[in-house]
Amino acid sequence: MTQKIDTLLINAIVLTMDEKLTQYENGAVAVNGDSIVAVGDKARLKAQFSAAETIDCGGKILMPGLINAHTHVPMTLVRGLADDLRLDVWLMGYMLPVERQFVSPEFVRLGTLIACAEQIRSGVTTFNDMYYFEDDIAQAAADAGMRAVCGESIMKYPAPDAASYDDSLAYAREFIKKWKGHPLITPAIAPHAPYSTNPEIIRACVDLAKEFDVPLHIHISETAFEVENMRKEQGMPVVPYVKKLGLFEAKVIAAHCVHIDTGEIRTLQHANAGVAHNPSSNLKLASGFAPVQKMLEDGLKVGIGTDGPASNNDLDMFEEVRLASFVAKASSNDPTVLPAAEALTMATRLGAQALHLGEVTGSLEVGKRADLILVDVNPLHNTPRFKRDPHNAYAQLVYAAKSTDVTDTMVNGKWLMRERQLLTLNEADLIVQARELAVQIDTFLTEREQSVLSKLIALGGSMEEESFEVQVKVKATEPNLVVQNLGREEIQINAHKHYRQFDEYFLFDNSAQGRLRYREDSLINAKGEIASVRTRLTLLGAKREGEMGRDVALSRSRYLAPAVQSLRFYREYFKPKTEISVEKERLRWHIQYKNTEFFINLDTVKEPALGTFLEVKSRTWSRKDAEYKASLTQELLDLLGVGGAETVAQDYIEILSA
Amino acid sequence: MTQKIDTLLINAIVLTMDEKLTQYENGAVAVNGDSIVAVGDKARLKAQFSAAETIDCGGKILMPGLINAHTHVPMTLVRGLADDLRLDVWLMGYMLPVERQFVSPEFVRLGTLIACAEQIRSGVTTFNDMYYFEDDIAQAAADAGMRAVCGESIMKYPAPDAASYDDSLAYAREFIKKWKGHPLITPAIAPHAPYSTNPEIIRACVDLAKEFDVPLHIHISETAFEVENMRKEQGMPVVPYVKKLGLFEAKVIAAHCVHIDTGEIRTLQHANAGVAHNPSSNLKLASGFAPVQKMLEDGLKVGIGTDGPASNNDLDMFEEVRLASFVAKASSNDPTVLPAAEALTMATRLGAQALHLGEVTGSLEVGKRADLILVDVNPLHNTPRFKRDPHNAYAQLVYAAKSTDVTDTMVNGKWLMRERQLLTLNEADLIVQARELAVQIDTFLTEREQSVLSKLIALGGSMEEESFEVQVKVKATEPNLVVQNLGREEIQINAHKHYRQFDEYFLFDNSAQGRLRYREDSLINAKGEIASVRTRLTLLGAKREGEMGRDVALSRSRYLAPAVQSLRFYREYFKPKTEISVEKERLRWHIQYKNTEFFINLDTVKEPALGTFLEVKSRTWSRKDAEYKASLTQELLDLLGVGGAETVAQDYIEILSA
Repeated sequence: MTQKIDTLLINAIVLTMDEKLTQYENGAVAVNGDSIVAVGDKARLKAQFSAAETIDCGGKILMPGLINAHTHVPMTLVRGLADDLRLDVWLMGYMLPVERQFVSPEFVRLGTLIACAEQIRSGVTTFNDMYYFEDDIAQAAADAGMRAVCGESIMKYPAPDAASYDDSLAYAREFIKKWKGHPLITPAIAPHAPYSTNPEIIRACVDLAKEFDVPLHIHISETAFEVENMRKEQGMPVVPYVKKLGLFEAKVIAAHCVHIDTGEIRTLQHANAGVAHNPSSNLKLASGFAPVQKMLEDGLKVGIGTDGPASNNDLDMFEEVRLASFVAKASSNDPTVLPAAEALTMATRLGAQALHLGEVTGSLEVGKRADLILVDVNPLHNTPRFKRDPHNAYAQLVYAAKSTDVTDTMVNGKWLMRERQLLTLNEADLIVQARELAVQIDTFLTEREQSVLSKLIALGGSMEEESFEVQVKVKATEPNLVVQNLGREEIQINAHKHYRQFDEYFLFDNSAQGRLRYREDSLINAKGEIASVRTRLTLLGAKREGEMGRDVALSRSRYLAPAVQSLRFYREYFKPKTEISVEKERLRWHIQYKNTEFFINLDTVKEPALGTFLEVKSRTWSRKDAEYKASLTQELLDLLGVGGAETVAQDYIEILSA
Repeated sequence: MTQKIDTLLINAIVLTMDEKLTQYENGAVAVNGDSIVAVGDKARLKAQFSAAETIDCGGKILMPGLINAHTHVPMTLVRGLADDLRLDVWLMGYMLPVERQFVSPEFVRLGTLIACAEQIRSGVTTFNDMYYFEDDIAQAAADAGMRAVCGESIMKYPAPDAASYDDSLAYAREFIKKWKGHPLITPAIAPHAPYSTNPEIIRACVDLAKEFDVPLHIHISETAFEVENMRKEQGMPVVPYVKKLGLFEAKVIAAHCVHIDTGEIRTLQHANAGVAHNPSSNLKLASGFAPVQKMLEDGLKVGIGTDGPASNNDLDMFEEVRLASFVAKASSNDPTVLPAAEALTMATRLGAQALHLGEVTGSLEVGKRADLILVDVNPLHNTPRFKRDPHNAYAQLVYAAKSTDVTDTMVNGKWLMRERQLLTLNEADLIVQARELAVQIDTFLTEREQSVLSKLIALGGSMEEESFEVQVKVKATEPNLVVQNLGREEIQINAHKHYRQFDEYFLFDNSAQGRLRYREDSLINAKGEIASVRTRLTLLGAKREGEMGRDVALSRSRYLAPAVQSLRFYREYFKPKTEISVEKERLRWHIQYKNTEFFINLDTVKEPALGTFLEVKSRTWSRKDAEYKASLTQELLDLLGVGGAETVAQDYIEILSA
């Protein structure tokens, strides 16, 4: 008696990717319901089963679907938006502003469906995601028929789907409750990274993961900078830090792990954590070379991921597997490292184990879900095929096959693609929707980039209002006399400070854009030591707003804010045409004269050596107020003994660039 | 009046890849005969030209065809044959034996046609080859309609197409004469590499290249090992060495240049040499990271190549361009390095310049040949498309496009592919032919691998005949007595030597294979110093051939030869199941006794410490001769005072493995 089943796949080169890497040259796989019921020689299975449908695989390779162990699927919608940038410029300058503006349930749904289409086409059957609105991502993945681990992101900053992390955690709890037990979707919690969360968040995430027995997905040691900061702040690298917080009480999936040492590898292995290695992303963002070979030797479950398509820029796991092997060889100076079969194991069985789904998927074995693909290894770019060594098949797949050679994809016993036709998604429609959104994003960024000011605003963060100042500057040939005159009884001194100021001015092609100044202010104490340093960003008006009588100017600062990023960041983000540096010592008095506040700056411009200048400044709010203050300014100059001095209409950098 | 032309391509995003990276969002290209006659906006060109055929490109990208700057095209036929091996094992163990057996004019013709089909499909219009029977390669490339620089390989060893390098040079001269001036084929001379040629060959190649004004294609500094050897032997790195030989009098195309320093980069630049960078090959063979960024900064013309498909394993230039960018970023720790536009320039304009074809191809500019491709950037894996920044188009092509997105390819004004249909080649037929050949190669290697002996033979090199020996071994409890007795008058001493021997025995699963011994023999002089070292490889019979009376054995050495490769090489090539090491001091006498030659070995086995043994050995050629010598052996043992000593039937490693 033959056993009745749904589908029998015959005439395939079956690569089971099981522990022994069993292959069947003329093999077959029997599928019933959502599961694999037999794998073996065609003749044996044909005798054993009576299938509702028998599919002739025509000599293609039949293998488990690929596991994309780390990604952010909705970011398909921003791929190619901004490339060849430093991580901080890319993230703060482009990704976060666009995400703040556009990410919504509809956005993530569309992005996920596009990602599913791309992944089904390229032979991925399971992916591990981390993003916002993960409930909508899970729904889209389930609609597309894919298997997915969906991790709701938790960060200490406001996110597109939550004003605070308390809200994120509440959302995550509801999300996990809703999806727990779904046949395709494994809900998960995803504290973004140690540096972007805090101990309280990590603890809460671990508790949630334990309560519902779901995986915890987190970025670990992606960059050397992250590890360096952690060492500085916590006196230890990242893995011991999160261990101390109890992270490994959960079923962890650690993405990247580029900069981890031998001890950390051992800790991850003891904790049974999975690791997601992301070769393209690590190369493209110059994050470094992960010690993959060492991790594998130590028995760590290391899968391979594409990372988000904004830093890759695709979801092509064939490319990732090849790169995983290439990079391991090159970075270890040993071409025998990470051979094809092992790289492909990472993308299948080991990847499933890394996602804590080793019992469910990742190999063609009886009892596992039927997640499988057919790959045509007969096209010209993969000709010829050698059979001398069973490893030839893996070499073909890893070193010469393309994702476009995948012809059929089945997940959970259901076909999602047959002969390159997607069965659950309408690609043409998705492409149209993505294009419409791209136009909006293009418009948003184009508008923003039309002015330095809007680029500044797009960066977000605290911003102050516009301010107007009345100001005059004169050459101070006798600075000591000015200091002495500040002691006059008409002048009340509120405060006195000494600064050392390093100014970097960004100048642009279109001078109407104004000038952007990055200032590093060192406050010097009475002993001449640096007491504190602050950095500020100021957008200065292109020209004076008006003259207020004899050489007194009305000027406008359109924007000022703490400079939270590095000078290098702003340089790459704003791409100034030229830069000018000015270094000066500033003695600054905050005074009151006739019940009006003024700042008196005695500036010695040291680099370049321009000499000493006296500035008198006061904020103003109206034309009339400005006129009054301009007259007081003249009186002050006389009082300070520089009434007759040569006034300087130009800014220091105008003197320089003149 | 409109100008009559053959073809007008309209409705394309035209990326000219000219010096200014000019783009036309709604562009057109006019082709007449073999050349580009106009590039610009669609409206302008439509008004200007009247075309025999107007082709609507449907919004695809129209760009110059890619330049594959270094490859060995016939090796398509051995792709996937042997992977994940060290360069020497791969080359000596697999590629050279297979090439010796199979490479012929028919082989290179088939391999070239397959490579052309693959390259036309993936948007390559020009390739730079180095192989044997280059005349047949040139003919096949011309038949396929591709542009190619065809460099006939010259090596100091015999090649598949020449018994000596004189023959190679004669062949090359005829080949160059024949093809010089062909519209598609640029003949070239290709001294393989400095290490595989000699100064005489290099000089002759330079002279030939100058005589016919053709390029000279050579591998330079591919591995650190090569550079290290050059420094040892010549006291300088590779570029100064070849400069001294006058190499740069020719138009050089230097492949790889992985391990070159700043001075060498400057030398190459001054010499106007082109460089071919091969990212996949350099990663897969763990050759290292070429200083591409530095070369570009210094103005070197650096193109990108796939290298041969046996070390890649495909001819996918889209993959190479992406990798060139990725690897430059990762190896310099800077994600802004080698941005998409620059990487694509390397694969087009700069690549053509590297091949000394900058006037002919590499960009869409008036007067250049019409070598162009259409790339569909609208498939889902490349959705959406942003237009904010002109660099978005390059990012799409470099980071997300696949070679399979190329739909049309034109070379020299002639279509080679239209809408993914090849017009000059019959793919199905090529695949069938390649498969037939693969079966032969599989059979050849499978047979070879059935025995250790045939694997040894496949390595080639000098080999000695089988030899039989009569031998006996006894425990020598009083070695000094033996030495003393060797002074007896019955014994004539021909020679006496002292060796220190390090033996590595390879043992195999099937003991019938015999044992392979790698022996390092240090000859010790009278002062106790090492006078010379030699390494030998010996395949020992699995068991004794027979007993010759009291404990005298007849043994057989089936193979013995100098070990020209390293121990590591043989280990990886033969993959022994286990290994055993033996270190001993050997005092060896070559004596005559009753007009018969014998060797007397007094062996002190130090590691492991087994004690001292006396061996008496003599070569023999017949059973009768063996019997006679066995009796003499007994007499000798008596003479030497060990006639009653315990005989040892086992070999040292049998004592160990027992």
